[in-house]
Amino acid sequence: MTFVVHPIGRVESPLTELADAPRQGDEGAPDAWLVFDPAYRDGLKDIGPGDELLLLTWFDRAARDALVVHPRGDVTRPPTGVFSTRSPARPNPLGLHRVTVLAVDDLRVHVSGLEALDGTPLIDVKPVLGAIDER
Amino acid sequence: MTFVVHPIGRVESPLTELADAPRQGDEGAPDAWLVFDPAYRDGLKDIGPGDELLLLTWFDRAARDALVVHPRGDVTRPPTGVFSTRSPARPNPLGLHRVTVLAVDDLRVHVSGLEALDGTPLIDVKPVLGAIDER
Repeated sequence: MTFVVHPIGRVESPLTELADAPRQGDEGAPDAWLVFDPAYRDGLKDIGPGDELLLLTWFDRAARDALVVHPRGDVTRPPTGVFSTRSPARPNPLGLHRVTVLAVDDLRVHVSGLEALDGTPLIDVKPVLGAIDER
Repeated sequence: MTFVVHPIGRVESPLTELADAPRQGDEGAPDAWLVFDPAYRDGLKDIGPGDELLLLTWFDRAARDALVVHPRGDVTRPPTGVFSTRSPARPNPLGLHRVTVLAVDDLRVHVSGLEALDGTPLIDVKPVLGAIDER
């Protein structure tokens, strides 16, 4: 049994090289634009500046066959089960990112500190629910 | 461009009816078991009791064509763009759940308060990163 994911848009970012990408969004990641496919226009009508969002992306340049990885790519650290890490290399290479909306321009949403490469497919956007995500 | 998701396991839960499912994990959701496919055994070797995890599931019984929904299914509330809600009905019906590990028994992981129906496919497991997810 498998399922098919349809990207809803993509990331537009000054980050173009894996080597330049920070490990997490609060480690100096640049602001970026989310560029939505016009088919999903109605879904983003209530997103506005100041919103705290969780993004799901697809790490389309990551390996999918790694079950054990070195945390943060540091080979001096012991190999760790991939489900105990945030490695982009994982069976289903979905990235999870927390961002703040800076501005909205029609199908383009400007967000703070996103550690995803230019062109990364955007899969889903969810609001942060304080009681759930911050407890 | 599309991507294919391969479930890594499934949820085993006393929740079998949509009508019984709480809207969020902290609204009385029952404890549940995650049952991993043996192919992913190595990936969960470092998961243990007390771990705080984020689960991605696939809401396999949700519609995918809804771009505007009534929050919490309440038709008295105004229709809202789906990316500003946690509705299971969304273009890529991925669920995000925060749980605590209660016990691990080989390929079975017991977790607290999970608002997912019995049989729901499990797509990914990530550790909670305090600095990112709780800031």
